[in-house]
Amino acid sequence: MAFVDSRGLHHARGHFNPPKALVDLIAPADVRFNGHRPWDIQVHDEALYQRVLSSGSLGLGEAYVDGFWDSDQLDVLFYRFMRVETDKKLAGWFKLRLFGELIRQSLFNLQSSRHAFKVGEHHYDIGNDIFEAMLDSTMSYSCGYWEHARDLEEAQRHKLDLICRKLKLKPGERLLEIGCGWGGLMRHAVERYGVEVVGITVSKEQQKLAQARCEGLPVSVELKDYRDITGEYDKAVSVGMFEHVGQKNYRTYFEAVRRLLADDGIFLLHTIGNHKTNKGLDPWIDKYIFPNGKLPSAREITQAVEGCFLIEDWHNFGPDYDHTLMAWWRNFDQAWPRLESRYGKRFYRMWKYYLHTCAGFFRSRQGQLWQLVLTKRSYPGTYRSIRSLS
Amino acid sequence: MAFVDSRGLHHARGHFNPPKALVDLIAPADVRFNGHRPWDIQVHDEALYQRVLSSGSLGLGEAYVDGFWDSDQLDVLFYRFMRVETDKKLAGWFKLRLFGELIRQSLFNLQSSRHAFKVGEHHYDIGNDIFEAMLDSTMSYSCGYWEHARDLEEAQRHKLDLICRKLKLKPGERLLEIGCGWGGLMRHAVERYGVEVVGITVSKEQQKLAQARCEGLPVSVELKDYRDITGEYDKAVSVGMFEHVGQKNYRTYFEAVRRLLADDGIFLLHTIGNHKTNKGLDPWIDKYIFPNGKLPSAREITQAVEGCFLIEDWHNFGPDYDHTLMAWWRNFDQAWPRLESRYGKRFYRMWKYYLHTCAGFFRSRQGQLWQLVLTKRSYPGTYRSIRSLS
Repeated sequence: MAFVDSRGLHHARGHFNPPKALVDLIAPADVRFNGHRPWDIQVHDEALYQRVLSSGSLGLGEAYVDGFWDSDQLDVLFYRFMRVETDKKLAGWFKLRLFGELIRQSLFNLQSSRHAFKVGEHHYDIGNDIFEAMLDSTMSYSCGYWEHARDLEEAQRHKLDLICRKLKLKPGERLLEIGCGWGGLMRHAVERYGVEVVGITVSKEQQKLAQARCEGLPVSVELKDYRDITGEYDKAVSVGMFEHVGQKNYRTYFEAVRRLLADDGIFLLHTIGNHKTNKGLDPWIDKYIFPNGKLPSAREITQAVEGCFLIEDWHNFGPDYDHTLMAWWRNFDQAWPRLESRYGKRFYRMWKYYLHTCAGFFRSRQGQLWQLVLTKRSYPGTYRSIRSLS
Repeated sequence: MAFVDSRGLHHARGHFNPPKALVDLIAPADVRFNGHRPWDIQVHDEALYQRVLSSGSLGLGEAYVDGFWDSDQLDVLFYRFMRVETDKKLAGWFKLRLFGELIRQSLFNLQSSRHAFKVGEHHYDIGNDIFEAMLDSTMSYSCGYWEHARDLEEAQRHKLDLICRKLKLKPGERLLEIGCGWGGLMRHAVERYGVEVVGITVSKEQQKLAQARCEGLPVSVELKDYRDITGEYDKAVSVGMFEHVGQKNYRTYFEAVRRLLADDGIFLLHTIGNHKTNKGLDPWIDKYIFPNGKLPSAREITQAVEGCFLIEDWHNFGPDYDHTLMAWWRNFDQAWPRLESRYGKRFYRMWKYYLHTCAGFFRSRQGQLWQLVLTKRSYPGTYRSIRSLS
């Protein structure tokens, strides 16, 4: 007994019971279909159930973008899904499809591949206006450092300064940044610490923008793969790039950095991590969404650096990514009225879904945010790190 | 052409050439037999060569205790041996026997087994007078924290305070210490932070001494294995005990701590680490010197904690152990005149050898000193660690 409304959504007349398999699946997270808590799933179209049953988390996400369901607290919903020790409380293939793909799909779909944004209503590539509206003035598209920060702008500047101070940058030193984004760290390092920077990117657009943002500074932005970098650097840094390296290339990556680094040099690696080793990507994700995408586990990193670098310092501030993502969401949501005509409603839902799933991923502690300081054995004396910025 | 002197040492008349195999072996470390640099090996008895050729590092150490050779800078000598990337520059079984056993033998021989001390001239068990002379007033027999310390006493007090502050101890909390030694940390935690402590040890003598040193304080010292501990604790700590757990028990160890820790608890693990994973102990060492002794690698630790604890913070201050060991050596050497009649000259040489090999082990960066902060996924918010004590 269903009818189709003017937007094409399927509605049940009277009570429609969701499939018991799905009710049971989400019960351990204390989530209900059409419940009365703000995180519960409000079903607008029962086609949702079939989507989830057949396509797991992919179906859940697509159904959200299609407007089949809502939740007043999307971040809390995903936090509740992901904090469950799924190995113990849920069984079978579905847990993997729901909880595993949920985050990979969301996280990498939008961070990594412009292609993915073509699903937007008007088939526009995503523009810089989205990022300018969402991010702080340094255009940092990675986790901020919130220990003493009052807002996103401070959190990102503190993060940049934390990195520079952990690297012990000194005037005249040569810094290599592998994956330089829009150049926020390069500018900070040059202006505050007097270094020269070579930034590497594989994106022509990033190269252009980073060059523009660093004009007049001793910054060179080169378009190349990390395997093709040459020269010797006093310090090296990589922020939010290791997630794209892929597990089979970890050793190659660390060996490349080792080759480029002075014997008394310091390498800082800033990366998202996974609480557990995750073997094998879902074939569909691997093929369509994020080729070679991979969140490293601590085990995989230690295995890859063994005999190559010493680990001097390992700093985990994963829950700060929750704060960062929610700040991005607030900025995006506020700016939406002037973005809407360009991107359309579907994009809004997709972007909302992306930011909230990621917030839940870090709040649940499945997601980690790591800064590792790595040196060669020839580094002189005891490396002294910092935590609090004073 | 040799003669035997009044001490029974074999001397060559005129020039005696050491075996080319040994000369070549030590050359990559820039070490020579009878050279003129302060770290060179001065040979008193050519029987040294046969000892090393047949027994590797074990022979080298025994020959030192027997007085067959000397070096003015024993610490520099071992530093030079151990900083060499042996895998690349030396080949064959000997490198393993020399550089691998060197440190295992030295480090564990004297730290772990009273039995080993029976090789002393008068066959005395080692007494507390040695440790009282060598250590600081807190009787800390583990690495000090030298960032701002001017002497051993400060370095050890800073280490104790660093641990307490990383644990975020609050008045009334219950702290579990697995492997409580002579009670220095328990006293510090109770007196400065107002906690109650349960300390665990497998040694009756340590239990007695720790009880005496903590008399009148809310400290209970229990004689049991870590697998038999019961109860729930707000915080847990283990300093210099994990080295005795053995790789096959790592998972059991972490699961035991997890079971004992509150959901919002903090566990601090302080342990020596190895720069690489070291598979398999030498059978002789395993049988006679250090049953189940094992220095963990970062890889082994991350593997064992995966899915059990999150790594919030990993602090490496390995080179501070070099400073600690050299401070112990100076204290021991100064106190020797009043210890000599009890222990005899052979003990002096053995102890000197032990402290200097270990100093070289850490100075070469083969040895790491790690403090890890571990939590459950249910730990609320971002764990904030510290580095500098202010």
